[in-house]
Amino acid sequence: MKKILTTLTVTVVLSAVAFGQQALGPGTGLVSPEINPDNSVTFRLYSPKAITVSVTGDFLPPQTIEYEMNGRKISMAVDGSAEMVQDQNGVWSFTSEPLTGELYSYSFVVNGQKAVDPSNIYQKRDVATWVNYFTLSAEQYDKGYWYEVHDTPHGTVSKQWYNSPTLGEDRRLTVYTPAGYENGKGKYPVLYLLHGSGGDEDAWNDLGRAAQILDNLIAEGKAKPMIVVMPNGVYFNNAAPGLAVNMFQPTFTNSRSDSTKEIEESFPDIINFVESHYRVAKGRQNRAVAGLSMGGRQSCALSMAYPDKFGYVGMFSGVVPPETAEHEAALEKVFEVGPELYWLAVGSADGVKANCDKLRATLDKNGYPYEYYESEGGHTWRNWREYLTIFAQKIFR
Amino acid sequence: MKKILTTLTVTVVLSAVAFGQQALGPGTGLVSPEINPDNSVTFRLYSPKAITVSVTGDFLPPQTIEYEMNGRKISMAVDGSAEMVQDQNGVWSFTSEPLTGELYSYSFVVNGQKAVDPSNIYQKRDVATWVNYFTLSAEQYDKGYWYEVHDTPHGTVSKQWYNSPTLGEDRRLTVYTPAGYENGKGKYPVLYLLHGSGGDEDAWNDLGRAAQILDNLIAEGKAKPMIVVMPNGVYFNNAAPGLAVNMFQPTFTNSRSDSTKEIEESFPDIINFVESHYRVAKGRQNRAVAGLSMGGRQSCALSMAYPDKFGYVGMFSGVVPPETAEHEAALEKVFEVGPELYWLAVGSADGVKANCDKLRATLDKNGYPYEYYESEGGHTWRNWREYLTIFAQKIFR
Repeated sequence: MKKILTTLTVTVVLSAVAFGQQALGPGTGLVSPEINPDNSVTFRLYSPKAITVSVTGDFLPPQTIEYEMNGRKISMAVDGSAEMVQDQNGVWSFTSEPLTGELYSYSFVVNGQKAVDPSNIYQKRDVATWVNYFTLSAEQYDKGYWYEVHDTPHGTVSKQWYNSPTLGEDRRLTVYTPAGYENGKGKYPVLYLLHGSGGDEDAWNDLGRAAQILDNLIAEGKAKPMIVVMPNGVYFNNAAPGLAVNMFQPTFTNSRSDSTKEIEESFPDIINFVESHYRVAKGRQNRAVAGLSMGGRQSCALSMAYPDKFGYVGMFSGVVPPETAEHEAALEKVFEVGPELYWLAVGSADGVKANCDKLRATLDKNGYPYEYYESEGGHTWRNWREYLTIFAQKIFR
Repeated sequence: MKKILTTLTVTVVLSAVAFGQQALGPGTGLVSPEINPDNSVTFRLYSPKAITVSVTGDFLPPQTIEYEMNGRKISMAVDGSAEMVQDQNGVWSFTSEPLTGELYSYSFVVNGQKAVDPSNIYQKRDVATWVNYFTLSAEQYDKGYWYEVHDTPHGTVSKQWYNSPTLGEDRRLTVYTPAGYENGKGKYPVLYLLHGSGGDEDAWNDLGRAAQILDNLIAEGKAKPMIVVMPNGVYFNNAAPGLAVNMFQPTFTNSRSDSTKEIEESFPDIINFVESHYRVAKGRQNRAVAGLSMGGRQSCALSMAYPDKFGYVGMFSGVVPPETAEHEAALEKVFEVGPELYWLAVGSADGVKANCDKLRATLDKNGYPYEYYESEGGHTWRNWREYLTIFAQKIFR
């Protein structure tokens, strides 16, 4: 996103009303965010009567908040924030340092209250929170490059329903088929890609830019053409908000499952559906499972439940920590069969790193082969997009 | 890393940050909107320091605004608004009259500035404006009933790319296939469904609830199972924002095409793609074209450009007005072949009604058979959703 088109406020407001949508107040003609030639970014908000306006987002250095819970002092990193400055016309602005290629998220805070940027239509929802975003690519193959759309062949993203006899219902999933699938006859390997707590079958594609990452990696010859299947990993929800019966509001309590049991037991229903509806190359060497957070835990559990099913296992910021003898026995079976790749990734500041460390200690103790990738930061989509970009290049080779 | 000490909002910030999203400020626990037992709806916003808060939306009686443009006085209907009242806890609220079944849109206006409802994750984007929405169904088969998700078989929604040799590029389209398509062998009729100015290939499915309307009508036996193809109808855009190269901001100037010529000339590319990739029942009796606003104009133009192609033509709030002898000659050819259904629909307060009236006068003069449906209101998605619900029941019979 180098330049954003601008139009006259008058035209937009008028035509907007005329064509059945709402445009409230002026400021619609502002450009925000604007990526400057040096890759600094300027944010703008028209709000003449506001007393304080700031911008908060992951393009700023994180800040640490501290609080007490049950008498324990807890500190954690949250997005940084910066005060914006008002000009004579009532427009508040802030310009960042030059940024590196990435997909960045931000919000405004007006008089202490969160507000989206009315000049930027790009928004994404994570569980129950909407934030604005933008992408920036400073050079080829930087992170932003993989998340942006390039003039390459594009795959198909399909939202479908499959029947799960195990769970006794129809459930929704997202399927990415690579460019050329529709016109070809070849069979493809499959990556099963699982979301985290509070997420759903839309999460990896909307927040994770899965289709863009795969389109770009495949176009550059850096990943094998593959099918990516993104099911709903919460056994008691069958579809994303708006696609399920009842317009539920997702929260961490109604959109997470701490148990992996139901997903383990019902997972063959998904594989059966995919392998009977798509041209799928069979066998474990053509089947990968990976997921983030809860989905990482599920991927870890699925590899133990079906040691002969998955040739590649990716655990992004989530694992089942080895705490029982049963677990060690299950792990032994995984490595008796021997996955082509057993890949752990976690952020150095992530609270779940302790569990990853435990699993790594067990793997090391037993001499089980695995790869480990540690990035900066915590439990964020920023890390998960990067992990997918790396993992997708390593599988089906 | 900056350090700040905060006593803020415990659990929300905690779980949100821990799982990689942002939650700013309190009020997240509020229920808004709340549908009451009498089908009135209560809206709530926590904003202790706000001076004025109102709610605006299409659940309120419309209001008329007046302004001057080039010395001419213009008046137009826009969404009504209502003041909200603050309680001691800083929560502003408003309760509507009992409402009938419908999909309603609304926004808050805080101190004169538009704000989305932070308690409602349901948002939709129309061109460049995000608003909240909710659905309400008071009885079976009311409007809201068709737009909500019911426990019925669901079709697949697929976002794909096709090559247009005429326009010399790959372009994106949305395809709905009805429940049973994947497991069956049968061939299906196709409705080509075109969006309006400022829209894209996502519009009919996201704003128009096309998949829900078709799922429900088919499940109730009120519409024939059909494939619905929703292409991008702006010849100089090949995909929706975020899916096109460059993160463009849609406006009415960069997302509309006043000319129908390019879409007419390139439309066979779409039909060829669909008929070579899907199990399509061939022939005009299995092919319908319909659209809203600009898409209505395009449907009208396509029926004249290819009089033998479309057995059913639906023009929702948009027609090509008959102003030339060529036009009358083209119209004559349409009715020589004779569509099974030539269907015009428009709102009584819609500015384009004058053009519809002109076309109707020409049709009447020549004794060409058509059906006409006039609803209340103007140039709104509320009307277009209703028109699709009616039109889909009339075709392929």
